[in-house]
Amino acid sequence: MEIDAGRLRRDITENAQFGSVDAEEGRGRTVLTGSDADREARERLIEELETIGLEVRVDAVGNIAGRWTPPSCDPDAAPVAVGSHLDSVPNGGIFDGPLGTYAAVEAVRAIQESEETPDRPIEVVSFTGEEGGRFGIGTLGSSVAAGQRRAVEALALEDAEGITLEESLERIGFAGSAEIDAGEWDAWLELHIEQGTRLTEARAGVGIVDSIVGITNCEVTITGEADHAGSTPMFERRDALAAASAFVLDLERAAEELATENEAAVGTAGEGTISPNARNIVPEEVQFQLDIRDVAHDTMDRLVDRCRSSLARLERRRGVETSLERYRDSEPSQMSERCIAAAEEAVETGSIDAIRLHSAAMHDTANVAAVTDAGLLFAPSVDGVSHSPREWTDWDDCAVATEALAETVRILAAT
Amino acid sequence: MEIDAGRLRRDITENAQFGSVDAEEGRGRTVLTGSDADREARERLIEELETIGLEVRVDAVGNIAGRWTPPSCDPDAAPVAVGSHLDSVPNGGIFDGPLGTYAAVEAVRAIQESEETPDRPIEVVSFTGEEGGRFGIGTLGSSVAAGQRRAVEALALEDAEGITLEESLERIGFAGSAEIDAGEWDAWLELHIEQGTRLTEARAGVGIVDSIVGITNCEVTITGEADHAGSTPMFERRDALAAASAFVLDLERAAEELATENEAAVGTAGEGTISPNARNIVPEEVQFQLDIRDVAHDTMDRLVDRCRSSLARLERRRGVETSLERYRDSEPSQMSERCIAAAEEAVETGSIDAIRLHSAAMHDTANVAAVTDAGLLFAPSVDGVSHSPREWTDWDDCAVATEALAETVRILAAT
Repeated sequence: MEIDAGRLRRDITENAQFGSVDAEEGRGRTVLTGSDADREARERLIEELETIGLEVRVDAVGNIAGRWTPPSCDPDAAPVAVGSHLDSVPNGGIFDGPLGTYAAVEAVRAIQESEETPDRPIEVVSFTGEEGGRFGIGTLGSSVAAGQRRAVEALALEDAEGITLEESLERIGFAGSAEIDAGEWDAWLELHIEQGTRLTEARAGVGIVDSIVGITNCEVTITGEADHAGSTPMFERRDALAAASAFVLDLERAAEELATENEAAVGTAGEGTISPNARNIVPEEVQFQLDIRDVAHDTMDRLVDRCRSSLARLERRRGVETSLERYRDSEPSQMSERCIAAAEEAVETGSIDAIRLHSAAMHDTANVAAVTDAGLLFAPSVDGVSHSPREWTDWDDCAVATEALAETVRILAAT
Repeated sequence: MEIDAGRLRRDITENAQFGSVDAEEGRGRTVLTGSDADREARERLIEELETIGLEVRVDAVGNIAGRWTPPSCDPDAAPVAVGSHLDSVPNGGIFDGPLGTYAAVEAVRAIQESEETPDRPIEVVSFTGEEGGRFGIGTLGSSVAAGQRRAVEALALEDAEGITLEESLERIGFAGSAEIDAGEWDAWLELHIEQGTRLTEARAGVGIVDSIVGITNCEVTITGEADHAGSTPMFERRDALAAASAFVLDLERAAEELATENEAAVGTAGEGTISPNARNIVPEEVQFQLDIRDVAHDTMDRLVDRCRSSLARLERRRGVETSLERYRDSEPSQMSERCIAAAEEAVETGSIDAIRLHSAAMHDTANVAAVTDAGLLFAPSVDGVSHSPREWTDWDDCAVATEALAETVRILAAT
């Protein structure tokens, strides 16, 4: 499909004004769910959707869907849905979300202006609260649309000041009453920035995602004994930090071993606290938050098992007490073969260099993939930076990826 | 020497009222230098010193000395000085400092009431700011009395609110103008609680310290690269926390090896920070504060060398950057043979079970030992607890240790 790169750039640039933040380098925005910036971004999107003749509806959690029912199609056929999100992390970038949302708009415009006669309606979607910065849970809107979470539960979530999602959506006029059910879609497509460097390294313009990792989070606590760092001999200590250090190296070794079989497997201790954290006291307790990911759930289980074995060994060898609580566990998602095949065909048609890859970050598409055929495309991220004003995707790369998205939508809507 | 245990107990109990804090368990006090509680404790001590006929003087940094010049002595002879400190850490115990100060008072009272005819004046001393909680530097008053720090430097030190030591001493009326020079003392003795369990384990009533450890503090920084914990493959990471964990284990191993030769050798990473400390970001930087102690300075140097070797190896193997800054290095102190011999004789005379041991904590005596013959005695600490309201020494143990102190003072003042 031929797309209009200038129009896409104008959309993303204008959207970037909402919640824009000063940044020394790059271009940043803060668009938290239910904020004025969120309202402005939503209103502009709806204006554009209505301008191109889409019938817009908003559901209880603020998800927006605009449906185009081409004269050529069976209006009762299950639609092909395509989109992303408009919210951002605090001080986020201007492409993470908006590229996929406005690329979806551009895909519809491109098909409308072409000679194509789609057999199915096409629905442009923008999900609420993908980033989770304000209400604590990411990919929130899509979890409701895909039936994994009840709307009332989502609406009752509170921000740090006790304001509920419901109140915040009512305030900005986006507590809707329509139904948006991802299970009714024939297929779903999302374009997103890669947030990594694999596309750049492969000199590819588009990434065709075959799976999205699952994520397990664990809280590990290692408890020894607080002692005077001067008067407690080395051999009489139960040093929680020394035990925790052995654990971090065990985790690293286990993740590296599993990664030799499957490069997507990762295990990270990124967050930790030491108590009492005083220079002259042997540490009493260390607590870590672990992040474990892979495209195979079995690998994640094995890595958690290895963590438990390490802790059991430390209890025996170092006399510490330990606990591991696995408080989050999301399954990996497989993209549908039909969507992947359509995307492969699209990049071939457009002579676009593309690679197959997995997504190491979570996306709304993971929720939708549980209820219908889903596909995810990546556009290159300069230096892999995201969640920062330095996040960037060259405009030419935005255009190429949008061209691939539009062609994939065309193929899926033609069946 | 026969001492009056009831009188000693009354002194310590009354002193414990100043700055007393509520505690669920035990009995606590907060006596920061220059506080009202500090003023009250000082005023009570001076009242007691004057009651028993001592000539009291206060120096520029608030150190207090009360001199008894017995009729039997040469008034120009170098005095035997004995004492400790009255300040505490926040929520400290009631014996850490006051036991040694009032045991010194009791020693003078006991000798005064005996048939003894000392050949030298005896001086009871209470040093300012031993704990260092408010002005950041421990054993402050003794460092000035021993000529290791100029009074003007000490007086210019500021607390967290920018109040100088000078201002705080003037406020409580303890910015004196007398001279207290530890170098003029014939000998110095201090009784302190052990803050460890070696006396209890040996069922000994008194510990005769032969050396006080030196302390080296280092700041170690390990810098890797912050990366997305999902999208950065295991083999492309420079994880600062994994490198730091290897360092902590290297430090532990090296300290354990050195401790097999010398049990006083210890090395501790007690305080650390992880940056950015987020669950889904590979750690960029870890910083540790190290505490290294031994009674031999050479061992401390070797342990620092082992730390540097570890860091160099981590730079090569893990591609991290590292630095080690040794920002504090105090030499170990040897107690004088003359003072140790007097204490040995004293415990034999009193049929008191005693052991020889080193001090793993810093004391004013370490400063004084640099300029005159010094001795340090320990009384047992229940469970080794200190710097806590749960710190405790049984009254009988206080009495036994004070008896040993008084006899040691008698012996030293008789030569």
